[in-house]
Amino acid sequence: MSEFDLIATYFTWKGLETSSKNIVKSVGDDAAVLSLKPNQQLVTSIDTLVPGVHFPENTAPYDIGYKALAVNLSDLAAMGSKPEWFTLALTLPEIDHDWLSEFSQGLKSLAQAFDIALVGGDTTRGPLAISIQVMGSVENGKALYRDGATPGDKIYVTGTLGDAAAGLVSIQKGFDLAKQEAEFCKQRLNRPTPRIPESELIKTFASACIDVSDGLLQDLSHILDQSRIKLITDNLGAALDLSQLPLSNALESIDTEQALGFALTGGDDYELLFTIPENSESQFLESSMKSDYKFTCIGTITNKNKIVDLNNNALEMNGYNHFL
Amino acid sequence: MSEFDLIATYFTWKGLETSSKNIVKSVGDDAAVLSLKPNQQLVTSIDTLVPGVHFPENTAPYDIGYKALAVNLSDLAAMGSKPEWFTLALTLPEIDHDWLSEFSQGLKSLAQAFDIALVGGDTTRGPLAISIQVMGSVENGKALYRDGATPGDKIYVTGTLGDAAAGLVSIQKGFDLAKQEAEFCKQRLNRPTPRIPESELIKTFASACIDVSDGLLQDLSHILDQSRIKLITDNLGAALDLSQLPLSNALESIDTEQALGFALTGGDDYELLFTIPENSESQFLESSMKSDYKFTCIGTITNKNKIVDLNNNALEMNGYNHFL
Repeated sequence: MSEFDLIATYFTWKGLETSSKNIVKSVGDDAAVLSLKPNQQLVTSIDTLVPGVHFPENTAPYDIGYKALAVNLSDLAAMGSKPEWFTLALTLPEIDHDWLSEFSQGLKSLAQAFDIALVGGDTTRGPLAISIQVMGSVENGKALYRDGATPGDKIYVTGTLGDAAAGLVSIQKGFDLAKQEAEFCKQRLNRPTPRIPESELIKTFASACIDVSDGLLQDLSHILDQSRIKLITDNLGAALDLSQLPLSNALESIDTEQALGFALTGGDDYELLFTIPENSESQFLESSMKSDYKFTCIGTITNKNKIVDLNNNALEMNGYNHFL
Repeated sequence: MSEFDLIATYFTWKGLETSSKNIVKSVGDDAAVLSLKPNQQLVTSIDTLVPGVHFPENTAPYDIGYKALAVNLSDLAAMGSKPEWFTLALTLPEIDHDWLSEFSQGLKSLAQAFDIALVGGDTTRGPLAISIQVMGSVENGKALYRDGATPGDKIYVTGTLGDAAAGLVSIQKGFDLAKQEAEFCKQRLNRPTPRIPESELIKTFASACIDVSDGLLQDLSHILDQSRIKLITDNLGAALDLSQLPLSNALESIDTEQALGFALTGGDDYELLFTIPENSESQFLESSMKSDYKFTCIGTITNKNKIVDLNNNALEMNGYNHFL
């Protein structure tokens, strides 16, 4: 099977190429040609997934396809951007038709759900690696950055925290979760939900936003680092109300300290972490009441240089680092 | 060293982020934000390089960085597109500072030469793989495709053909090339020249264009396949004048049949292969005379269903297929 047959068989999804997506030329030439509306900017991000680092070695191919696109869509959500197109660079040790078919189904299901078109790619032989580059659009000047937090802003998150970390530990070490809870956490690890619709609401009100991929404390520190640069100050920190961290039933079912550990430092949740200026909070809450979205206020941006809990204890940062 | 330090140390090139590139947000957020001019379309392509497939295992890190960007720029050249931005997804088995420093220099030298800005990326731990996504711009409706060839069009190529294949064989099998010629061919393999300036001239006149990555016959057949679909006919082929294939001094120095084999089926040359309609040829030649570019006419598009030489012998297609 040639590279061309492989793409035709597994990555040409009839009915998913919509003209509304402004695709001038899709798969099949040297490059794709795409067109943005005049008042739009391009938002783009690339992420690679490799086994043993981004997903456990024995992860189902469907889930690998799903997650590879999900983590990239999450980056678009963090920017307040609408998904438009993506490309796929797939490195495979061999042609395994069952694997490819399931991988393709997982990828397609998410592409369909978020109306994003596959416009190009590359397949090559080598150790399994999946690189996806997503491209989205945002109205001129409306993208959401990490660097806009100021003292007094309220800190919010979507969904629940720590489930993916609990799922990973449960898979790796046979961690003691009841069957149903273990299944839930594994699902959260393997099929994260990109918070695209939530992002559409958040971007109207938020001063800063990031997706929680490295762990809450680590990602909050990214917001603080970038915002310090913009404010030209070292005096920017956060006070977190740990009792408010949103936990799933699964995490409520385990030891509280362990659950808090997962919620604070566990990566791979792909929830959005964002800050809302005090004077926009009531409007934000009003809008969010009308939605089905789960937003939880977990703290406040301060003019101190640390992340602390309400008792002023510094919180240890221990996010995920591929190279440690 | 964290992922953030790694990017700051090796992939933040002072003075290379130019505001003329319409970069609203570069490295350091969840995604880059970029802006095209209203009359422009986005041209984008992704390519992955892995050792042993896209470059010999012992290739110098400088050359790997160089080639990874070069092959992607070549895709933009084949589309008639101006380079704007790129992202890098780098999977590394370990942090090797010498390797990273040289890789970064190779990448930077080419980025500088072709005025393309690195706007985002991702580093992860795993078997060495380099994915680059290039993004370029083209005036609305001016992109160059594979599918516009019609009978009577003249077939042209840039540069010389077969050098990279000779270089690869020379490295792998100790092929008998004189030292200087071997060095030249190795250079052609490791540091291909993206034909971006040539593309600017070609796109005004050409009916179809592709870059020679899989081998002349294979890539010509891609032009024919796509053009057959557009013309709704099977009767499209090519007649090549083998005596006109442009060969370097290195290839002139070896057995003629072997040289022809390299030129016809060797991949990795990254020259542009394009077709010029009969009625534009004199204008094209006039423009090319004023340039320094090397263009060679090697044949004609026919209304037969094959690629043949001037004696009407069918030419065997044996392009590179990663999965054979």
